[in-house]
Amino acid sequence: MSQADRLWINVTLFNGLNTAVEPMAVAVTNGLVTRVSPMRELPASEQVAVEVIDAGGRLLTPGLVDCHTHLVFGGNRAGEFEARLEGKSYEEIARAGGGIISTVRATRSASEDELFNAALPRLEALMAEGATTVEIKSGYGLTVEHELKMLRVARRLGRERPVRVVTTLLGAHALPPEYKDDADGYIELVCNHMIPAAAAEGLADAVDVFCEGIAFSVEQCQRVYAVAKEHGLAIKGHTEQLSNLGGSAAAARAGALSVDHIEYLDEAGVKALAESGTVATLLPGAFYMLRETRVPPIELLRRYEVPMALATDANPGTSPIFSLRLMLNMACTLFRLTPQEALCGITAHGARALGLQEQTGRIAPGLQADLCLWNTNNPAELAYSVGLPTLAQRVIAGKTH
Amino acid sequence: MSQADRLWINVTLFNGLNTAVEPMAVAVTNGLVTRVSPMRELPASEQVAVEVIDAGGRLLTPGLVDCHTHLVFGGNRAGEFEARLEGKSYEEIARAGGGIISTVRATRSASEDELFNAALPRLEALMAEGATTVEIKSGYGLTVEHELKMLRVARRLGRERPVRVVTTLLGAHALPPEYKDDADGYIELVCNHMIPAAAAEGLADAVDVFCEGIAFSVEQCQRVYAVAKEHGLAIKGHTEQLSNLGGSAAAARAGALSVDHIEYLDEAGVKALAESGTVATLLPGAFYMLRETRVPPIELLRRYEVPMALATDANPGTSPIFSLRLMLNMACTLFRLTPQEALCGITAHGARALGLQEQTGRIAPGLQADLCLWNTNNPAELAYSVGLPTLAQRVIAGKTH
Ligand SMILES: [Zn+2]
Ligand SMILES: [Zn+2]
Repeated sequence: MSQADRLWINVTLFNGLNTAVEPMAVAVTNGLVTRVSPMRELPASEQVAVEVIDAGGRLLTPGLVDCHTHLVFGGNRAGEFEARLEGKSYEEIARAGGGIISTVRATRSASEDELFNAALPRLEALMAEGATTVEIKSGYGLTVEHELKMLRVARRLGRERPVRVVTTLLGAHALPPEYKDDADGYIELVCNHMIPAAAAEGLADAVDVFCEGIAFSVEQCQRVYAVAKEHGLAIKGHTEQLSNLGGSAAAARAGALSVDHIEYLDEAGVKALAESGTVATLLPGAFYMLRETRVPPIELLRRYEVPMALATDANPGTSPIFSLRLMLNMACTLFRLTPQEALCGITAHGARALGLQEQTGRIAPGLQADLCLWNTNNPAELAYSVGLPTLAQRVIAGKTH
Repeated sequence: MSQADRLWINVTLFNGLNTAVEPMAVAVTNGLVTRVSPMRELPASEQVAVEVIDAGGRLLTPGLVDCHTHLVFGGNRAGEFEARLEGKSYEEIARAGGGIISTVRATRSASEDELFNAALPRLEALMAEGATTVEIKSGYGLTVEHELKMLRVARRLGRERPVRVVTTLLGAHALPPEYKDDADGYIELVCNHMIPAAAAEGLADAVDVFCEGIAFSVEQCQRVYAVAKEHGLAIKGHTEQLSNLGGSAAAARAGALSVDHIEYLDEAGVKALAESGTVATLLPGAFYMLRETRVPPIELLRRYEVPMALATDANPGTSPIFSLRLMLNMACTLFRLTPQEALCGITAHGARALGLQEQTGRIAPGLQADLCLWNTNNPAELAYSVGLPTLAQRVIAGKTH
């Protein structure tokens, strides 16, 4: 074995799926993990590298993956949050220009630079807690021009900061005022203009939809999926958040990487996910902020062995939460995931929800060396505690940032 | 007016009780706030100081006050958290040595240095989010020796870091195994030995009790209050968390600074608080972690104008949450406080819950210059958003730390 660039020794290893039962070593060369082995199988002669980091028993995990965010947006909705708590009705707030349309307005009127500068602290907050891969959706432009603008900002965030940014076109997020009473007309715009333009410019890695009574029908979503696939883009869905329309099963049958929210998913839907290998992405932040009571069907997902991802859903309306670490605790406390399931959700299964399972989200030979070293020796503590333990080291492609 | 040491200009000012309607200036000399005035009343000739900080419209608040924590403890209970989520019953966990008694055991066996080093990152996590005053309770020693050890650690934390630490003797937290079936005997130990010893060494600023069916009766708590007052110590209570025993009213009649938790407080209790000027301290972290459904009587507290404080209750069992900022969002989301009420709870009313209302928690002439400058211009954003906005400057007694 040739000498590694960096070698972590004496680590408690959570590899994205399991916690090792004995002290481990992880070697990295040219930005990739090249060896993962128990310390006792690592002869002293191989405990050399350009840099050796003795973790002293501390926990090493994959770099964290936030597989569902809406980080790029104009304005914020703190005023609306306050108005609601001061007793204003939804109607009054809507009349005063609140709701998602206020974010659409603010996003449309913002320049690329303005959107970039507003999104940067949000991304940096996630990075400070260990995120090395962050998905960012469009969906507040709702015109070809403004959706592409959002995606360009997302791409630029990934270029200007040491983080893997994955972009998702969410043109079918809400019906823009210009298409009031013409959802089919808007879906045609998404299919005939938005997706082709985003694909032509290489701005989107995937296409997402909001399949819900207040958004788009299953049939409309299926049209979007078909066109996305024609353009070689992966697909995802916001499904079964507020009701059970069968949107998850439809997405699964179309080969979706993930379906997200899924509080109202039934057994037939879970079965469909299992058959297609689609990831179930849980978003407890929105559940918490909306004070929902219907919990996703965790037992069914376990029984059918559907991988569960976990994400912030960071967005200005229903989850202004820029902390993936907090999602670990919320998934355990509110959805009764085990700490290990929650950790898999922001590592291996989060990466799978983005189609990146052979690049990141696990610590295994051949994968990118995206790593987090934590000031604890117990993986469960990451989910148990909020605000602690602190992050000792954040490594992306083998380099500390 | 003589020249100030530091002058903040063009601030959006939340003074601990209200948000100013126009741009403000705050002058500080010798660690105290010396002037608070609208910018337009500050002639250019007075816009000088040794250091002038132009906030550019950003928000200045009092330094944050966490008026209820159990930051000093041995061990942690991540394993128990995990076991419960993996389906172990409370009985199995208790048999395996879990529960508060496991923390008592770990705390007793830890040295002062070990407790100090374990508590430090917890305190630093609170400080990093803007806390300048933190109350720390004992309560996991449950012998004279170990309770005093905890209080010594708390005092040392306050000496070794730039933060005001207020200490509270919580000997009557739980019945130690040595006094099984002899709660009155243990209360005698607290009254005859613990309180006098803590008072003699100047280790406690206040005395607290846990008044609950699973802990101590109202009558036992009243005995503790009487002795605390004889020794010139302030009093507080953990009351009406799980049932309505009338412990809050008893504490109020004894002149308590605050009663804390109070999910089961009734109108008679609220009236008693109003009459005695006792603060109602809300602890949404424990409510959230225990998945409680009974919300404190917020409307009654408003109607009787009882000041509401807000704190982390940071502790290893029911609120391993080292983030006071998150409590703002939880108080709004779970208890329906307005953002302004929540902010008062971790500033002016938090200070009042510690008897420090003339020292800190507000930005007013004569008070300590404990200040936080935030990267936002909207106070509501502190409660709306989790993880953002970031803290630009943390000032204690006029100095940036
Ligand atoms: Zn979403
Ligand atoms: Zn407490």
